[in-house]
Amino acid sequence: MKLWGGRFSKGTEKKVEEFTASVFYDSRLAEEDIRGSIAHCQMLARVGVLTARESSDIIKGLEEIRQEIRQGKLELKAELEDIHMHIEKRLIEKIGPLGGKLHTARSRNDQIALDMHLYLKREIVNTVRLIAGLQKSLILLAEKNLLVVMPGYTHLQRAQPILFSHHLMAYFSMLERDALRFKDNYKRADIMPLGAGALAGTTFPIDREYTAELLGFASIYENSMDAVSDRDFVLEYLSNSSILMMHLSRFCEDLILWSSSEFDFIEIDDAFCTGSSIMPQKKNPDVAELVRGKTGRVYGSLFNLLTVMKSLPLTYNRDMQEDKEPLFDTVDTIQACLEVMAPLVENITVKKDKMKRAVEEDFSAATDLADYLVNKGLPFRESHRVVGELVAYCLDEGKLLKEVSLEELQEFSPLFEKDALTCLVPLKVVEARKARGGTSPEQVKDYLEKAKNMQREKENYTG
Amino acid sequence: MKLWGGRFSKGTEKKVEEFTASVFYDSRLAEEDIRGSIAHCQMLARVGVLTARESSDIIKGLEEIRQEIRQGKLELKAELEDIHMHIEKRLIEKIGPLGGKLHTARSRNDQIALDMHLYLKREIVNTVRLIAGLQKSLILLAEKNLLVVMPGYTHLQRAQPILFSHHLMAYFSMLERDALRFKDNYKRADIMPLGAGALAGTTFPIDREYTAELLGFASIYENSMDAVSDRDFVLEYLSNSSILMMHLSRFCEDLILWSSSEFDFIEIDDAFCTGSSIMPQKKNPDVAELVRGKTGRVYGSLFNLLTVMKSLPLTYNRDMQEDKEPLFDTVDTIQACLEVMAPLVENITVKKDKMKRAVEEDFSAATDLADYLVNKGLPFRESHRVVGELVAYCLDEGKLLKEVSLEELQEFSPLFEKDALTCLVPLKVVEARKARGGTSPEQVKDYLEKAKNMQREKENYTG
Amino acid sequence: MKLWGGRFSKGTEKKVEEFTASVFYDSRLAEEDIRGSIAHCQMLARVGVLTARESSDIIKGLEEIRQEIRQGKLELKAELEDIHMHIEKRLIEKIGPLGGKLHTARSRNDQIALDMHLYLKREIVNTVRLIAGLQKSLILLAEKNLLVVMPGYTHLQRAQPILFSHHLMAYFSMLERDALRFKDNYKRADIMPLGAGALAGTTFPIDREYTAELLGFASIYENSMDAVSDRDFVLEYLSNSSILMMHLSRFCEDLILWSSSEFDFIEIDDAFCTGSSIMPQKKNPDVAELVRGKTGRVYGSLFNLLTVMKSLPLTYNRDMQEDKEPLFDTVDTIQACLEVMAPLVENITVKKDKMKRAVEEDFSAATDLADYLVNKGLPFRESHRVVGELVAYCLDEGKLLKEVSLEELQEFSPLFEKDALTCLVPLKVVEARKARGGTSPEQVKDYLEKAKNMQREKENYTG
Amino acid sequence: MKLWGGRFSKGTEKKVEEFTASVFYDSRLAEEDIRGSIAHCQMLARVGVLTARESSDIIKGLEEIRQEIRQGKLELKAELEDIHMHIEKRLIEKIGPLGGKLHTARSRNDQIALDMHLYLKREIVNTVRLIAGLQKSLILLAEKNLLVVMPGYTHLQRAQPILFSHHLMAYFSMLERDALRFKDNYKRADIMPLGAGALAGTTFPIDREYTAELLGFASIYENSMDAVSDRDFVLEYLSNSSILMMHLSRFCEDLILWSSSEFDFIEIDDAFCTGSSIMPQKKNPDVAELVRGKTGRVYGSLFNLLTVMKSLPLTYNRDMQEDKEPLFDTVDTIQACLEVMAPLVENITVKKDKMKRAVEEDFSAATDLADYLVNKGLPFRESHRVVGELVAYCLDEGKLLKEVSLEELQEFSPLFEKDALTCLVPLKVVEARKARGGTSPEQVKDYLEKAKNMQREKENYTG
Repeated sequence: MKLWGGRFSKGTEKKVEEFTASVFYDSRLAEEDIRGSIAHCQMLARVGVLTARESSDIIKGLEEIRQEIRQGKLELKAELEDIHMHIEKRLIEKIGPLGGKLHTARSRNDQIALDMHLYLKREIVNTVRLIAGLQKSLILLAEKNLLVVMPGYTHLQRAQPILFSHHLMAYFSMLERDALRFKDNYKRADIMPLGAGALAGTTFPIDREYTAELLGFASIYENSMDAVSDRDFVLEYLSNSSILMMHLSRFCEDLILWSSSEFDFIEIDDAFCTGSSIMPQKKNPDVAELVRGKTGRVYGSLFNLLTVMKSLPLTYNRDMQEDKEPLFDTVDTIQACLEVMAPLVENITVKKDKMKRAVEEDFSAATDLADYLVNKGLPFRESHRVVGELVAYCLDEGKLLKEVSLEELQEFSPLFEKDALTCLVPLKVVEARKARGGTSPEQVKDYLEKAKNMQREKENYTG
Repeated sequence: MKLWGGRFSKGTEKKVEEFTASVFYDSRLAEEDIRGSIAHCQMLARVGVLTARESSDIIKGLEEIRQEIRQGKLELKAELEDIHMHIEKRLIEKIGPLGGKLHTARSRNDQIALDMHLYLKREIVNTVRLIAGLQKSLILLAEKNLLVVMPGYTHLQRAQPILFSHHLMAYFSMLERDALRFKDNYKRADIMPLGAGALAGTTFPIDREYTAELLGFASIYENSMDAVSDRDFVLEYLSNSSILMMHLSRFCEDLILWSSSEFDFIEIDDAFCTGSSIMPQKKNPDVAELVRGKTGRVYGSLFNLLTVMKSLPLTYNRDMQEDKEPLFDTVDTIQACLEVMAPLVENITVKKDKMKRAVEEDFSAATDLADYLVNKGLPFRESHRVVGELVAYCLDEGKLLKEVSLEELQEFSPLFEKDALTCLVPLKVVEARKARGGTSPEQVKDYLEKAKNMQREKENYTG
Repeated sequence: MKLWGGRFSKGTEKKVEEFTASVFYDSRLAEEDIRGSIAHCQMLARVGVLTARESSDIIKGLEEIRQEIRQGKLELKAELEDIHMHIEKRLIEKIGPLGGKLHTARSRNDQIALDMHLYLKREIVNTVRLIAGLQKSLILLAEKNLLVVMPGYTHLQRAQPILFSHHLMAYFSMLERDALRFKDNYKRADIMPLGAGALAGTTFPIDREYTAELLGFASIYENSMDAVSDRDFVLEYLSNSSILMMHLSRFCEDLILWSSSEFDFIEIDDAFCTGSSIMPQKKNPDVAELVRGKTGRVYGSLFNLLTVMKSLPLTYNRDMQEDKEPLFDTVDTIQACLEVMAPLVENITVKKDKMKRAVEEDFSAATDLADYLVNKGLPFRESHRVVGELVAYCLDEGKLLKEVSLEELQEFSPLFEKDALTCLVPLKVVEARKARGGTSPEQVKDYLEKAKNMQREKENYTG
Repeated sequence: MKLWGGRFSKGTEKKVEEFTASVFYDSRLAEEDIRGSIAHCQMLARVGVLTARESSDIIKGLEEIRQEIRQGKLELKAELEDIHMHIEKRLIEKIGPLGGKLHTARSRNDQIALDMHLYLKREIVNTVRLIAGLQKSLILLAEKNLLVVMPGYTHLQRAQPILFSHHLMAYFSMLERDALRFKDNYKRADIMPLGAGALAGTTFPIDREYTAELLGFASIYENSMDAVSDRDFVLEYLSNSSILMMHLSRFCEDLILWSSSEFDFIEIDDAFCTGSSIMPQKKNPDVAELVRGKTGRVYGSLFNLLTVMKSLPLTYNRDMQEDKEPLFDTVDTIQACLEVMAPLVENITVKKDKMKRAVEEDFSAATDLADYLVNKGLPFRESHRVVGELVAYCLDEGKLLKEVSLEELQEFSPLFEKDALTCLVPLKVVEARKARGGTSPEQVKDYLEKAKNMQREKENYTG
């Protein structure tokens, strides 16, 4: 059975059926398809295109098919092209020619668009909640290690001492923006296309607002050609996911670095690592590596669909069938990444002593020494030069800053006094950064309080 | 002069200076840099880090430099690395060592981040207004050709008659979503990073809220490490621009098709076309082609920066300097495209007769014939088959639908009656699509009214 | 069973097993894996690391497993991670602890690299042959329509008359370059990594040249770290596939245009088209659209893997597991596209009359009129201007060039004589382009002869 | 002056001139353009289309213009569109209407294609030589540090001891493949398009083989439509450059890691680093970071042009003008990266003691202990488990492997004997990997000898 055989004098090549079939991936839309069909049917009855009896018979049939699908009883076949045709054919098998009336005032173009909107609305909600889940893990780990000092890096060079909790909260902030973007995305997904027909609208006296209400849409497309041509909401999801994965790739890079013998700042739990088939000593941060690697597939999916849509004339073109796999793969990928990262983060062992030792044995407090001189009246550029020369001296002599005597200091600037070296104690350095958003404990605590509210609010997000 | 020479025993290689210099493109941020520095300076005075006198001297110096830059008097040199260093060096030349105090409580990391935020806020506003400009042209062209009927396409095959104005308004809708995305983007640009220092905040008692207020920011970054690491707002702009260019590429594809001898639906004004160096008869839709082609560079810029940011450990890494060129190029590209498209669209000549003839000589009213049978009680699937066979018959006989006699019709279905063929008149077909969002004149008019308000609102957008 | 449990105090999270498992896609490498293992085993026996008896027992076991896999009897489980572990575990079940000796002098890193090389070598051969298949269809269609004249386009504007066969042969040339690129790719796939161990080589006295000989490799990696880090050969395949798909997308664009009512130059066979669920008259060029659309997924896969590999420190990182899906998907996609395009092309009906009428009713012979004047001594730039003005006159008067009288011509240039208009006959225009590579029939025939040899040679390509 | 004004009734919009002008970047092709024009002119004289006198006058004019351009005397103007028109106009100014004859039998389409081929051929040669330059630096650094032992990594975890020189030579191998790819690319650039005209060939009796010979091309395009449509050779360069940059990004990642306080394996010379505007102690590996970051722009350029070309119908479309900027930017970028990396590498200070200490204080010799047991007859999987448990024991006890007593060893396996621990000495571990391609000194030396020949051969590459 094809939905469109009449005009054709010849059947479709077997190879072509396989090449064009989408049912093996769009079957994922079965629930949405039936939900949308039921609402469409209710609307058709309300406006009198179907009788109440016809409508209830069709809906009953659809509900039975839904059960069959849930129980895995619907066999998928390439020659039936897509899930929509499978369901329609099964409906006609069940309730006879009446099943053919379901497609009144509807085209596959607006039907598929509807399914995609319903699907994505649900998955955006899931995504936002999973983001909240990872945020929760970050908060827990940050609170557990609130006052742990570690080196902060720029250029992967030690820059200034920071709180480990401050570092974690930077990732919290990124995830927060990710969630906001997905919520903005939701607004563009929350528009109902049904009623656009193939492209021009329909001659039947349908009530699109009613269908939208039944399905929980905030608004409807104002232009039927746009309704069937639009894949912006999918692209936005892919773009937001790309930025999210970029954040996760940065976080994973940090985790991988910290897990190395050289940094040795954290230990990822055995349950989240794997070993080597040949090297008995190996414990590899595979999960973090894979999350980092999966950034590629999400970027790739974004570029895939951007390429597909480029230069397509209006309205629907079959190329657009290629929107589904990149979307489904991206939904699966980012959700799996968020899900596996949350417990991984919660179970990280922080090696406080290693972090502390690191921060004590470097020059990352040098800025504070320069600030010290500024407070004594030296212009910043001058004091920067003085301390730079002092560091060069230390490197030559094999000394740390804290090992330099007052006399030595004063050779570089007479402004140095006895208290100069007190500004080098890492926790002091950290505490001194009290301005809003800085790494001082009070600032981090403040932000943690706000963060907990932000996180909770998203756990309960419903779109 | 380097800002950081003290610790180094050797100068920088000439080649390295050239390789790392950004001043030849980041000089575009000069205005923002000075504006940010003035606000920073005012804040430093307010909290007592600078005296009132110091502050006003610095500001006076900065304002003079701003004038010099506007007059093209500041010479750019690779060895001074970036625009920030050029300005600082010039300031010190002008007002002496006091100039060195400007950089107190600030790092290039948060300074550059600030400049980028200021720059992008302004350009988002410009972008939204330019979108409104192209929307205006679409509205004008649609109103001028409100009732022109043309074939609507799916798969580049004639599908159903539509109004040309309806087609144009599909593009209006796309642009409307683009504008909404840029406005959402603005929210993420409108956060002030200054005060984050290099990464950890600052030891000086600064007042970030005050600086934010002076510069018109809605909020400030809550985490200093995030503040200097974040390029999301840039990526969002690139992503939104990619979707916008995708829309324009589709529109241009339509314009190019319509300008071909084969379609011959419109004529693009001579002033927006070019000819051939060899073929005297040629008039090419170059502008539309170039806009379509420039989609590539915007996509490329998005993937450029996504690649740059992937897997960078916190916080700032020099790789991030590479954010500027793709952003600047994208701002220039999309704004130029919008600017050139607006008058091009306004000056299109619509060949109404050609469009009308096209729609009369095809089978695009076939759906309405099927709907006719549905209204007589036939299930849609059945009527689809009947009309499909009728079309096959016409193709064999070399007839159009409107040339088929009632007797012939009735051989396909006894339900056809005298009035059957009246549903084939294109304008009737169009008028029949009365449901909201459809192509009927009343629907298109309704949407045009709404559209005019949406367009005007954006013309006056200020962020 | 894990291959690496000894060092771990805790098992792997279920979720982590699922997240990290690759067996559900890398099982596609089963044949290569067994083939490689057998060769490895033979080599180990030859150098005395295994006894002849051990070797033959292992090989027997592997051959049985190969049969089990071919018969679909090997159950795949996430906790066994990848196909390599499945096979090794099954081998140990079958032949006891001896099975554990197979992995001597080998790591999963070089083992997987080997499998990928073997797989890609085979698929490059298949790809080249499939390219030859589509080339054959192009040759057949070109020969069948050798002298059919049609408009040639630049900027989608009619430019100069050409032979349809010449147009088709342009695509032949593109495919020829594609095949050359894949053959170059083969050289980089044809290098054996086995023996690199995890990264550093092995302490066992293995004979890598012998294994390479057994497996038919032209050479071996000279550096073990490179051997396990290299994915260039995969990237090259993805890049070559992207260029191939770009070519197919251009060809499909042409086919879609030519199938439109407006061009109406060809008819794609019913067996390669599909219809509409709502519009009974529709016959859509779905296959061509889908091939065009699938360009996106291939581009996406390339960008996916480029992103994955960016900035990975040496040597193997788990991110690299993500190389498989984009490669497998690309192999499937481009091979399916080539396979479906070949019969589609062969079954195209060419509407010669429509093409001919098109070329007679335009101005595409104008260049020849300019060349006519050049031959009378006018500099080309002058003659171009003269003919340009003549065309403008015709457009105003609603005339074609061939309808202009000699008197009218002479008003534009006294150099026009009686024979001027003979140069406008399309077939003459085509015949006049005799220089090598031009569209004259003799040139096209020449190229067709060469092309047939090139095509045949590739049909028999074996790597 | 336009080259195509005749047919137009109206001039071009100013904004359109600016939007469509390419002269501000394609002026880079001026030398190629003149070189190609001279050859074209010589050929036209040879076949009699121009007289000897005409030809020599034109050539003289072109040579003068070349001088003017070299001296910066040719003013570039948007209204003259591109460099080709600038040169032609200047020629006519110089030698009168005769200048108009140069464009006989040529179109801008094949002219620009020619210039791009000439340009790329030259730049491929330069690129290959610059690759050889970086290879030379790698060889020098490897030879200077031939026997330095360091940890080899997988998953950024210490895996097995290797020679530092072996690690460097892995990068040599990658660059070698890069060079081979560029050489393959050269074959596709080395085909002459001139004579294709606008798309269909030319009516003049030209001799394309002669022009090709004059310009040093190995062959000519066999199909004129392909000749003006083909941008494969550009895409191939962008793709090869992307893979090259991927390699450099990996190398830079290693350099950045090794320069960190945590690894502390190397010191990059001051001349190749920069400091911080705020943190006086900082010395940042900026060059390595920037090279890594510039990977993004090269990837972006590849995707730019792939997007541009997607779905363009034959033959030339104005979109294709967008091929130049991504190509030029990529040529500049990769050549600058190669040029700056070579001296950077040569001037690296290797901290041998740090590397040695690292490798002595880890478990990276564990594989050799497992191999020891294999040699005593234990299947590899068993010995892997035994050593894994031994490592776990060491970690619990805070011991290194070399600190474990024989008694302790024997509790894990009775097969351990006195000589067991001798296999743990890093240099021994390294020396034991004697199989071809392994990290043993003799293998590395062998490869270095071959490498020197490969490197020298490329230094003298001429295409």
